[in-house]
Amino acid sequence: MTREIIVIGAHAAGVDAASAARKTDRTANITLITKELHAGYSRCGIPFVLAGHIPNFKDLIVFPPSYYQMMKLNLRLETTVTNIDPNGKTIEVQDKNGNTETLQFSSLILATGASPFIPPIKGREKQGVFVIRTIEDGERIKQAMQTGKSAVVIGAGLIGLEVAVAFIEQGIQTTVVELLPQVLPGMLDEDMAKMVQKQLEEKGIRIITGRGVDEILGTDKASGVSVTGEQIAADFVVVATGVRANTELAQKVGIALGETRAIKVNMRMETSVKDIYAAGDCVESINLITKRPTISQLGTTAVRQAKVAGINAAGGYAIFPGVLGSAVTKLFNLEIGATGLTEKAAKRAGIETVVGTITSKTRADYYPGASSIRIKVIVEKETERIVGGQIIGGEEVAQRVNALSFAIQKGMTVRELAKADTCYAPPLSETWEPMVLAAQTALLRLR
Amino acid sequence: MTREIIVIGAHAAGVDAASAARKTDRTANITLITKELHAGYSRCGIPFVLAGHIPNFKDLIVFPPSYYQMMKLNLRLETTVTNIDPNGKTIEVQDKNGNTETLQFSSLILATGASPFIPPIKGREKQGVFVIRTIEDGERIKQAMQTGKSAVVIGAGLIGLEVAVAFIEQGIQTTVVELLPQVLPGMLDEDMAKMVQKQLEEKGIRIITGRGVDEILGTDKASGVSVTGEQIAADFVVVATGVRANTELAQKVGIALGETRAIKVNMRMETSVKDIYAAGDCVESINLITKRPTISQLGTTAVRQAKVAGINAAGGYAIFPGVLGSAVTKLFNLEIGATGLTEKAAKRAGIETVVGTITSKTRADYYPGASSIRIKVIVEKETERIVGGQIIGGEEVAQRVNALSFAIQKGMTVRELAKADTCYAPPLSETWEPMVLAAQTALLRLR
Repeated sequence: MTREIIVIGAHAAGVDAASAARKTDRTANITLITKELHAGYSRCGIPFVLAGHIPNFKDLIVFPPSYYQMMKLNLRLETTVTNIDPNGKTIEVQDKNGNTETLQFSSLILATGASPFIPPIKGREKQGVFVIRTIEDGERIKQAMQTGKSAVVIGAGLIGLEVAVAFIEQGIQTTVVELLPQVLPGMLDEDMAKMVQKQLEEKGIRIITGRGVDEILGTDKASGVSVTGEQIAADFVVVATGVRANTELAQKVGIALGETRAIKVNMRMETSVKDIYAAGDCVESINLITKRPTISQLGTTAVRQAKVAGINAAGGYAIFPGVLGSAVTKLFNLEIGATGLTEKAAKRAGIETVVGTITSKTRADYYPGASSIRIKVIVEKETERIVGGQIIGGEEVAQRVNALSFAIQKGMTVRELAKADTCYAPPLSETWEPMVLAAQTALLRLR
Repeated sequence: MTREIIVIGAHAAGVDAASAARKTDRTANITLITKELHAGYSRCGIPFVLAGHIPNFKDLIVFPPSYYQMMKLNLRLETTVTNIDPNGKTIEVQDKNGNTETLQFSSLILATGASPFIPPIKGREKQGVFVIRTIEDGERIKQAMQTGKSAVVIGAGLIGLEVAVAFIEQGIQTTVVELLPQVLPGMLDEDMAKMVQKQLEEKGIRIITGRGVDEILGTDKASGVSVTGEQIAADFVVVATGVRANTELAQKVGIALGETRAIKVNMRMETSVKDIYAAGDCVESINLITKRPTISQLGTTAVRQAKVAGINAAGGYAIFPGVLGSAVTKLFNLEIGATGLTEKAAKRAGIETVVGTITSKTRADYYPGASSIRIKVIVEKETERIVGGQIIGGEEVAQRVNALSFAIQKGMTVRELAKADTCYAPPLSETWEPMVLAAQTALLRLR
């Protein structure tokens, strides 16, 4: 009997799940369903289109129509799943014209993603207040940038800062307002965050931390915000205060959520309901260090989970081990990355740590173009294992994050890192690798 | 009683050993002795001075005179050690004026380095035939570059190719002759080496592999070479066919050499003679994978060994675990790196392997400036552990080498790498990290 695999959602998780299913079962019927007009594009690229680094939003489409043809994936755009019947193993869908249809599945993969969360700020319904998630969101912001001369970004997470940088690069006066006491609160500790904030401020972004937006000002259209009483004028406002897992459909069917309010899955990415899998921004992950539930709404997490879900949904066997939350971005010429736990997150998890932090160079001191790099490693005191790393530098940050991620995944101790075999050439690094130096600094604190 | 520590050699190994000794024993008398006029410079930077990337050879001096003052290190330049008495614990030195002196030591560190090896090619004594090891060598070559319009480089190892690139960048017609069938024979397998060769040829270097130089032509002064009968004209010739450990002094005292003909040391960098340590290019190392003796004449190896030797010589305790030979270079805009064993070296060590090789991009496909990157991972078949990696790409190669090096050091399996948590941002990487994709390819071969 031909296997019927349905995937709800058609971006990073959805398309990768469908592709993995196809590679596992060459004869299955595989259907991808998405509400959106565009499928298979990179949401992560949207800020870089706004910045003008990438000419068009269409360029973000990673999987063109030819891909679905080649992989024999049946793609349904602008189609909403209205119901799931887990017993009868059917779903009901409605297309843009209102036509409904019932589809049978052998296995179903929920890749329903997440939606922007807008805090209950007074005036949030006004014109000129935008979120940023879809190409359509991006197009609306781009439109506002044509005439707007000033902007406020609410939220100093990765997306908020990327968008703020885009605005500055396009000549728009920009203020970022973050309720928490630092930028990138999910990614960096305060000491590292301060460095980032300083460098962004030097480039002309005004950054307010530790204060919230009371109100979005203006009559019908936003004209600014009030931040603990201070009025900041702005032609438009972008709310980038995070996303929430889309779990409505799952909840409707009685699929269990985890303590993080995202869909709970096992290592095979199976939900609590038989033959229904989930992957990507809608699911809960397990942190590899704390072994506790966490939310890891990153593209890399999505594709890795999706591959596992797709293989299992197609009758194969694969497990997803968990996440470290390795992340990186580029703001102007500054690269910022992190993996594992911050000092703060470790403390919250009850883990006692010591840290080592150093500032070094990305190339031999005498080699032109060398830029500064700051590395912090976080070490679990009892086992002496590396549990986190944060890096800020002018180049070669992303792959150092990966190197620390590999070290953490394999339980490397700070003593081992302090003696690790690394490579060197004057145009590419220093003789003593900065990660190794950071470990040596942490070691001194362990004595 | 004050400890007397003498270090013979004053470059990467010597200065780092002396510095580690100083940090371990604040009161010791520490003396550094070198034959050379300049101490504490980076030999690795010499080709980049020739290329014009770095203005002066003097810029390569990493440890200026003020450093020795600050660290209270007694530096003796242009001084030769003529004898060691291991029983009386003295050395005899001779300064440039021929004055001799006897110095007492509590512990002695040999950081005598290595010297260029010139194969017995007919005509090698001619004018215009250079080796490249010291600043003085570099100055002689730079002099020859002023008037020379063509050059032959014998040897296509790291230094040979770096020098050849420097010549091309300075408008000198250059031919590289390598006796072995590929470029970078110690670092890459033939499939990866071919890619490098092709790209260097496209930049105008003529590369001859698998053929040797029969003779250096010319009367008193080199006018070219004969390569299996073919005459290649050249205004000067650089011989870059590797270096040999400087072991004369050690042998004179009866210090044991290893099977690689370099000085044998234990994990504390102790030689076979009590209180005499050795570090850097003059010693034999243990390969972390094969557990067999190997030669690792790299700057990173030197400084790590030196630190261990310095700590132990000063009464502390430290061990050096061994080497993977992680190395990297930049030739034009191409970065080339490797760690662990090549397929070839694994075979020689009796290790059965499977490999995974992929070509990917260094940034999201749609992000401008993305360049190609090719990654090969070598996997030990029985344990499924990664034992080697080779990377060629336009950017972010060095830190990927470090990431694979960490993976190898911690025994990461190819299955683990195929699911590893990595970071991603459109300007810095692809969603699926190329190292992870290479592992996935290797996994297919394991089935």
